[in-house]
Amino acid sequence: MMKDVSEMYIPTLDDMLAAHERIQPHIHRTPVLTSSFLNELTGAELFFKCENFQKAGAFKVRGASNAVFGLSDEMAAKGVATHSSGNHALSLSYAAGRRGIPCHVVMPRTAPQAKKDAVRGYGGIITECEPSTSSREETFAKVQAETGAEFVHPYNDPRVIAGQGTCSRELMEQTGGLDAVVAPIGGGGMVSGTCLTLSNLAPEVAIYAAEPEQADDAARSFRAGHIIADDAPETVADGLKVPLKDLTWHFVSNHVTDILTASEQEIIDAMKLIWKRMKIVMEPSSAVPLATILKNPEVFAGKRVGVIITGGNVDLDHLPWMAG
Amino acid sequence: MMKDVSEMYIPTLDDMLAAHERIQPHIHRTPVLTSSFLNELTGAELFFKCENFQKAGAFKVRGASNAVFGLSDEMAAKGVATHSSGNHALSLSYAAGRRGIPCHVVMPRTAPQAKKDAVRGYGGIITECEPSTSSREETFAKVQAETGAEFVHPYNDPRVIAGQGTCSRELMEQTGGLDAVVAPIGGGGMVSGTCLTLSNLAPEVAIYAAEPEQADDAARSFRAGHIIADDAPETVADGLKVPLKDLTWHFVSNHVTDILTASEQEIIDAMKLIWKRMKIVMEPSSAVPLATILKNPEVFAGKRVGVIITGGNVDLDHLPWMAG
Repeated sequence: MMKDVSEMYIPTLDDMLAAHERIQPHIHRTPVLTSSFLNELTGAELFFKCENFQKAGAFKVRGASNAVFGLSDEMAAKGVATHSSGNHALSLSYAAGRRGIPCHVVMPRTAPQAKKDAVRGYGGIITECEPSTSSREETFAKVQAETGAEFVHPYNDPRVIAGQGTCSRELMEQTGGLDAVVAPIGGGGMVSGTCLTLSNLAPEVAIYAAEPEQADDAARSFRAGHIIADDAPETVADGLKVPLKDLTWHFVSNHVTDILTASEQEIIDAMKLIWKRMKIVMEPSSAVPLATILKNPEVFAGKRVGVIITGGNVDLDHLPWMAG
Repeated sequence: MMKDVSEMYIPTLDDMLAAHERIQPHIHRTPVLTSSFLNELTGAELFFKCENFQKAGAFKVRGASNAVFGLSDEMAAKGVATHSSGNHALSLSYAAGRRGIPCHVVMPRTAPQAKKDAVRGYGGIITECEPSTSSREETFAKVQAETGAEFVHPYNDPRVIAGQGTCSRELMEQTGGLDAVVAPIGGGGMVSGTCLTLSNLAPEVAIYAAEPEQADDAARSFRAGHIIADDAPETVADGLKVPLKDLTWHFVSNHVTDILTASEQEIIDAMKLIWKRMKIVMEPSSAVPLATILKNPEVFAGKRVGVIITGGNVDLDHLPWMAG
């Protein structure tokens, strides 16, 4: 059910700038780290924007905070709602908590206990559904009908995209200029925000999206010229399984230079390399950009490259290089 | 074979200041991180000085660089030497490499291959010995006789202590003042450097040393009033197994407020908590301070407390909370 572009509200530079002012009290201006070891290894000059240090552990708090704090008092009073078991659920719960309003999260009853605990730890109110799309939609509709809560989509929402765009604005200020930026792509929220900001403020910067080979629907969409959505891709980069939607497709198809992919092993190796050399804890999804840079050195050699480390919420008891 | 204090050269504030100027081109001014979650949990305001982000992955590069770059050209030409299989070996190799001189490291042939590879990765020249004190001493004497290399002790050396003292100078500048500092204690190099700096520049700051219960020789020495050296303590905090020596005992006995201890499980829990909430990779040794703060909330509540995260060199394939 793709809507025509003409029906969508496409967020603008002004929306991103307003978002940045709105969310600043609620987010960290995360640091940009460099590694002389990784620079030597890649032949590029890499600038890692560390959203793993962000509030709630991921960049998603930018978009979620923009949506929550942009609501009128009347709308806010009814709360917000989403269906997610990942970083968006944590981030929306965090932002709603900061505003003192309820956040309803519909989550399959089969979701890991740790994820439920994390959402509750940020104040989210969980309604469980069966692990099927129909049950999720039915349950979500019921929650929304009962509460009147405002739905905040994890990525296909202009408020969310404007919020995510604040990340690359900071990155440009912190580095003083780049030749390219590489961000992981799942539903395309971060990449769309990056496109929004850079196409306006620094159109000379090439934007690369990085995707797991095993969930390469965005890369195939990009080559085909229309959205291809996979059913249930399996990848260690579990934040990147969701498909593009109309709004993110608009940004990706218009502003992305290329979409590069990496294998599961390449992603795990890149993740371990970052942990080992940079001493930071980050998610498998966040390692996909470095994996693609290592795989395509000719694209990045000699260039100043921003790399978005999207989040740090990882299960320390089940790291992907561990057996079992 | 403890020497009398009168025979030792005790490093001074001027030595620390000179060290800081000397090593600045070769080290990072590491960031100070905070965590609102850990502040709430402890009731204190914690400032984590992140030497896990330091060159070679540990604070030890401060002392090692001061020793290496303080040598005359004539002495430097013969290189430096040490016996260590830990962070000091890495750090001395790194510093020697920056000066372009050889670094000889005597290491038991039974040391893990990963540790040998890491030292070689920084340019260190390894001479293997049998895993016994007599073999190590014999081998080291031979290496020194053959090369004329300058011995740099991992901690009981005024040049090393002056170098380690630069860490708390930065911490004070970065935080604008503290009520207390907590640092892990093994041989006492970091704690001695902290004492050197704070007793001169900020004598109002209480200095706490944090030690594993299972390697609590410093705590027992502190209460007894003389050095007690254990034979071969076993602890997950493997950087903290070595005993105090005359020079570090001088600083510890004169300037430390108290030495607090934590159990193995408390250390592992604190380490995992820091990884999970702060998204940084750090060593078990570096978790001992937080473990003791969590165990003694009444000592730190309401205070501004500096916490030294001493290093980040950890085997990602064998994390202490993993079975096997």
